[in-house]
Amino acid sequence: MRTYDNDIFLRKVRGEQTERPPVWLMRQAGRILPQYRAVRASLSGFIELVTTPDLVAEVTIQPVDELDVDAAIIFSDILVIPECMGLEYEMIEKKGPNFPETIQSLSDIEKLDSGKSAAEKLEYVFNGLDITKRELKDRVPLIGFSGAPFTLFCYMVEGSGSKTFSKAKKMLYQNPEAAHLLLSKLTDTIIEYTKLKAQHGADVIQIFDSWAGVLNEEMYRTFCIPYIKKINDALQAEDIPTIVFSKGAWYSLKDIASIGSNVIGIDWNMGTQFVRDTVGSDRVVQGNLDPCVLYAPHDEIESRTKAMIQAFGGNHIVNLGHGVYPDTPLDGVKAFVNTVKSYSY
Amino acid sequence: MRTYDNDIFLRKVRGEQTERPPVWLMRQAGRILPQYRAVRASLSGFIELVTTPDLVAEVTIQPVDELDVDAAIIFSDILVIPECMGLEYEMIEKKGPNFPETIQSLSDIEKLDSGKSAAEKLEYVFNGLDITKRELKDRVPLIGFSGAPFTLFCYMVEGSGSKTFSKAKKMLYQNPEAAHLLLSKLTDTIIEYTKLKAQHGADVIQIFDSWAGVLNEEMYRTFCIPYIKKINDALQAEDIPTIVFSKGAWYSLKDIASIGSNVIGIDWNMGTQFVRDTVGSDRVVQGNLDPCVLYAPHDEIESRTKAMIQAFGGNHIVNLGHGVYPDTPLDGVKAFVNTVKSYSY
Repeated sequence: MRTYDNDIFLRKVRGEQTERPPVWLMRQAGRILPQYRAVRASLSGFIELVTTPDLVAEVTIQPVDELDVDAAIIFSDILVIPECMGLEYEMIEKKGPNFPETIQSLSDIEKLDSGKSAAEKLEYVFNGLDITKRELKDRVPLIGFSGAPFTLFCYMVEGSGSKTFSKAKKMLYQNPEAAHLLLSKLTDTIIEYTKLKAQHGADVIQIFDSWAGVLNEEMYRTFCIPYIKKINDALQAEDIPTIVFSKGAWYSLKDIASIGSNVIGIDWNMGTQFVRDTVGSDRVVQGNLDPCVLYAPHDEIESRTKAMIQAFGGNHIVNLGHGVYPDTPLDGVKAFVNTVKSYSY
Repeated sequence: MRTYDNDIFLRKVRGEQTERPPVWLMRQAGRILPQYRAVRASLSGFIELVTTPDLVAEVTIQPVDELDVDAAIIFSDILVIPECMGLEYEMIEKKGPNFPETIQSLSDIEKLDSGKSAAEKLEYVFNGLDITKRELKDRVPLIGFSGAPFTLFCYMVEGSGSKTFSKAKKMLYQNPEAAHLLLSKLTDTIIEYTKLKAQHGADVIQIFDSWAGVLNEEMYRTFCIPYIKKINDALQAEDIPTIVFSKGAWYSLKDIASIGSNVIGIDWNMGTQFVRDTVGSDRVVQGNLDPCVLYAPHDEIESRTKAMIQAFGGNHIVNLGHGVYPDTPLDGVKAFVNTVKSYSY
């Protein structure tokens, strides 16, 4: 097993006792950092950054340098999976992703590549991991990630972001066989992709089901849980630890816990009591400060962060309950990280 | 007390036994109806429709004619409240509302009109109610509504719709005194506005907290519950029945139940078991079919609607768990309404 100068994150992922909780932030490699904004300003667009391995390594390491977080997370985009399956997308400034062509029928789905042949196309991701590992010099572990099948399904069918994803959900009700086929092909691709990420140095894989909140318990049990479980099982069979974060899926938290991931991601809607009552005190959870707390005065950031740590107990990785918002003041982020790093159980 | 040809909705709101559950749909007066689309096509924009009393009456009554629902809901917009307080908005086609000026400071809030003097400016709304009552001819009761203070606060501070409303939430953390002042002024205005609506014929008032889902239990208890309770108390003191629908606030459902509204609105994330465990079986709840079910084949719409009715038990008004989506097939909506109307306990 590879060793790190700071391995507190990995020890907690494995369920070990630590002297304090580890801390990192979703979207820590991003617009909160002036260094990131400088790199971004020199480029034509977001996708250029995602597909340039040297720059991926640079922005992945920036938060380790600037914030001293306990883990790096490889800079990338969840939509590289639809891309490698044959569905290209563009990123429209201030609007978000857009797919010129969307998935509407069974024949659209049958045409998609999937599994290893699709995943292997994402060479720029694996090159980015290789360079990152070399330049990180084992200071902290590296997290790899993928979107969950349902979240990627949402974008591929809807074609863009949405508050309701009603066009995507329509397929679940009108054509469940087609939906299951697309979710299966996504699952096969995600398994190969995340295994390759681990082979290229990702120590832990986090699965993001960002749009879980548009479903309910029955639909999540039918269209999400079995696929996430298949991914989780495939990774754990190769000793790759996992984090599952289904944002907004409070209604399925018991089912999510039953998947057996090493860590369960928790959003800021879910109270500590609810979480511990549902998953038990022995499971490692990750989260869940409201990202907007980082706009508050520093003494309040400190007191809210400490209260959260005390409430969750020992089996806890500190994070926000969502990706950090781009306009968050950097000194608010630092107050948050420093509170955790100076905490002692 | 005014009597109606069909009063099943009002009887259920008052907690009486009925032979079947009543049914109506949030956004039933809207794009699902060809009659509505014809009216809209003849106008320059959405705000022209909202401010023209004859047309308000026409589109309010359309779903009673076309769908045979058990209640009408006055066609309007929640953003007339900021408007009458002095903050104008525009509706941008396919994008949503936009406020050219937003609320950023205490002095912005102090400048706003509020209470009776603000509410009385909305004469076009009250004229719309008068004409609707005259033309509805007591066929069914009429629901009036308002946005909840926090949801209106979100738009006034953020300036437009948002997935996170992080700019609005920032004020809650950075300047809670200013936030409370704005929420108070909104509350005073909403009380006068909804009382005037009742004087002009609204039989029941529904409070929509559409963006409740961006908060958590503690924040909702601090910034929302006291204000909604004040509105609810003021209305019930004048024998005006109330419905409180806080979309996404599953985490505060117990607090919401404690407000004491006649009816509690429920979104589709919340399972029946969760709802009944939290609010008890004696409270009247309203909801909560996933709006996307109406895209399904008719036998599935029927079976899912029946299963929901059986699961909720007698104290239940059938509705969707969210406003009906504009592209919902009209015959799907009819299959839903007809299933309820032919149901017998």
